[in-house]
Amino acid sequence: MLANRLIERKRDGGRLEPDEWRALMSAYAAGEVPDYQMAAFLMAAFLRGLDRRETAALTDAMLASGASLDLSHLAAARVDKHSTGGVGDKVSLVLAPLVASLGVAVPMMSGRALGHTGGTLDKLAAIPGMRTDLSLAEARAQIERIGCALMGQTAEIAPADRKMYALRDATATIESVPLIAASIMSKKLAEGLTGLVLDVKRGSGSFLRDLDQALELAGTMIAVGEDHGCDVVALLTAMDRPLGRAAGNALEVEEAIHALRGEGPPDLLEVTYALGAEMLILGGACSGPNDARRRMEMAISSGSAARKFQEIIDAQGGNPAVVEDPSVLPQAAGCELFEAPRRGFVARVEPRAIGRGVIALGGGRTRMDDRVDPSVGFVITAKPGDWVEQGEPLATIFARDQQGVEVGWSVLREAIEIADEAEHPLPLVSHRVTATGVERYGESRERGMGNAASARVDTSSSVDI
Amino acid sequence: MLANRLIERKRDGGRLEPDEWRALMSAYAAGEVPDYQMAAFLMAAFLRGLDRRETAALTDAMLASGASLDLSHLAAARVDKHSTGGVGDKVSLVLAPLVASLGVAVPMMSGRALGHTGGTLDKLAAIPGMRTDLSLAEARAQIERIGCALMGQTAEIAPADRKMYALRDATATIESVPLIAASIMSKKLAEGLTGLVLDVKRGSGSFLRDLDQALELAGTMIAVGEDHGCDVVALLTAMDRPLGRAAGNALEVEEAIHALRGEGPPDLLEVTYALGAEMLILGGACSGPNDARRRMEMAISSGSAARKFQEIIDAQGGNPAVVEDPSVLPQAAGCELFEAPRRGFVARVEPRAIGRGVIALGGGRTRMDDRVDPSVGFVITAKPGDWVEQGEPLATIFARDQQGVEVGWSVLREAIEIADEAEHPLPLVSHRVTATGVERYGESRERGMGNAASARVDTSSSVDI
Repeated sequence: MLANRLIERKRDGGRLEPDEWRALMSAYAAGEVPDYQMAAFLMAAFLRGLDRRETAALTDAMLASGASLDLSHLAAARVDKHSTGGVGDKVSLVLAPLVASLGVAVPMMSGRALGHTGGTLDKLAAIPGMRTDLSLAEARAQIERIGCALMGQTAEIAPADRKMYALRDATATIESVPLIAASIMSKKLAEGLTGLVLDVKRGSGSFLRDLDQALELAGTMIAVGEDHGCDVVALLTAMDRPLGRAAGNALEVEEAIHALRGEGPPDLLEVTYALGAEMLILGGACSGPNDARRRMEMAISSGSAARKFQEIIDAQGGNPAVVEDPSVLPQAAGCELFEAPRRGFVARVEPRAIGRGVIALGGGRTRMDDRVDPSVGFVITAKPGDWVEQGEPLATIFARDQQGVEVGWSVLREAIEIADEAEHPLPLVSHRVTATGVERYGESRERGMGNAASARVDTSSSVDI
Repeated sequence: MLANRLIERKRDGGRLEPDEWRALMSAYAAGEVPDYQMAAFLMAAFLRGLDRRETAALTDAMLASGASLDLSHLAAARVDKHSTGGVGDKVSLVLAPLVASLGVAVPMMSGRALGHTGGTLDKLAAIPGMRTDLSLAEARAQIERIGCALMGQTAEIAPADRKMYALRDATATIESVPLIAASIMSKKLAEGLTGLVLDVKRGSGSFLRDLDQALELAGTMIAVGEDHGCDVVALLTAMDRPLGRAAGNALEVEEAIHALRGEGPPDLLEVTYALGAEMLILGGACSGPNDARRRMEMAISSGSAARKFQEIIDAQGGNPAVVEDPSVLPQAAGCELFEAPRRGFVARVEPRAIGRGVIALGGGRTRMDDRVDPSVGFVITAKPGDWVEQGEPLATIFARDQQGVEVGWSVLREAIEIADEAEHPLPLVSHRVTATGVERYGESRERGMGNAASARVDTSSSVDI
């Protein structure tokens, strides 16, 4: 009866009060509000929207439905990174040990693959023996000891969100900025963070295709964070092409390990350094971007970041030898080069097609209970803008068998477009969003100078948060 | 997966094709689409709307989900009446035998009480022994034999609608014109009708509170009927006060019997004659409204309409003696007059308050499994506009006990408003809607004369159907 009234109110464009959000979420988590009522409510919320106060209240309500990681006794700051999801996005695997090696605690809770995008948990599962199903007590002890844990969302954390997320997936109510923001923030706040850096992906391979939506999500999450004493900074990064070269679970772990040794692809390192600098500054470990960059480069060149990754793997039951010798990772039986069918510029490497291609090779899921083959995927060396000759190798296909290799060929023929002219890819990191507004990335020192670029950006920052 | 795509399309304001409606409804009826997906879809449909083609396709799809009453072999026309629901609305009980006694077959499928409004099935259940759970075969045989059956929606008819209606009730998706229209029409078309007369209630006691919505519903149902070869005529009637005097199941049966004997309250008879004339004309049994009126008055004065009611009750296992002697109906133990607390004009008799009052006395349901006491209710003799003196009897309360009588008092004190000035009630029958447009009731002979009244009405007929 309560649920019916709240559905009706949201349907008609009204607002729910904080205590109503809490009652609704706790009744839903307890099974007192059935899925069908919540589904109708979610569609009404999707179409009518939530204002900032409601988004914060929903976050609170989902957070309150479960337990939290209490890390308030730690001297170190606790900062996490969250990505809205992309293809080839193995940044977390590099970033968590890198930042933890510099004295900021990283309690990182990740998810499984969703749609065409990969998931950090699936990538970690490629490491022989590696566990990610840590309890809150285990995670807490590990963070105390080595400053980092790489874990999945436990049943203890935000159960209302967990249940609602599965329902949203089945009812076409995923792509709502306030619902996404509340879902992410309820989990992140349960990690007991002092700061959070968001990597909001833009472009054809991301869930939010246009800049306005990306800025709206960033603004909403910053606002919710502010209401909960957690500083949030967001960077908007490119997902109009895969990040780095590898797409596929074991292949991405291997690439992340190369990056931790200073041998990663430049775009992966750039995004990692940009996000890492924000984490270190939020965590009070560095004085500014230049200091952060210098210290991250040192952590990599000295090997301390790679050693931190070994420690984490070891603590979670994985084989730490993988960091020295990535060949302990599962290896694909079939492996073949893919060559350019013609000469020209690489006009596009379509991330959705690559992501779906990994699934087609058996390296992802179309249903929650599908088994994932960690060995398969692609390593694509060609980048948009590159000039290539006919027959030049552009990528390597890793598959279970010859049939898989052929699937891989047709995926890449579709995904990699060669044309007479190069298109302009999105800037790797384009915008930085904080509680004070939106700026073009790297232009922060120009703020207040009234030039055309920042004026334009100021306009675009007037998104409704 | 199919369902998800269709939810997404409707969510984004798109249209479903007829084969998609059919696939969705048959999958839902078969339990292949879960309630939660249908709930999200219904909310999207509620907020985004359905166009005329979609409404017709949904009607078709729900109709096709079950069986129909095949009456095509009958020589007689088959015409039913449907009311959108009101308080004191016992018209069906008078109308069905009256029209059937004049040679038009009336296969009448009715519902239980909904919200504050009564339901014909609950009223019929007050007659000792009366069955309404006829199978299609039983209904068919009875209509062949005596020209009328008064039945509930069987499990065979439009099961997708049945299931969906319960879901809509729980998810605040009832008050959508296309969903209401498709739900009603799928059941009515399953009766094998050649014509249908709609009684669309207006005013504070109806589900559709404003004229625009009432006209939109009428227009939508006429359009859907047209697509299915069933002529539909709608009359808009007043539900800003209860119809007739009695509210409560047995009391309404008694009043209907009085009306069949020519002793009913004038407003009940007026509405019955207006709807009956449309049914008789649609059924080809009368040449026009005056002819219809004359024959209905004769059917009542000759006793043939009352005898038809006896035949129907007898055929359905009820005690036919009730028509001669209504005292065989269940009688309330407590019975008390309600007197005017002051002198003045009766300004309002609020139908929602009366309807809820009947429920409060035990004569309706707040949950589907509540038991209904048929004996309780009100007989309200005061009508809006009447001048009354303090202490003058306005109504009689029928209750289970003294406590019920007190509940009845507080209901009536709230529902009957006495003021220094009379308000203008809505006209009893205000508009007539057909496939050719909307006209003020009784003005049809003025059509085309270009006077101010009909010009105004023509404007209001441009509702989106």
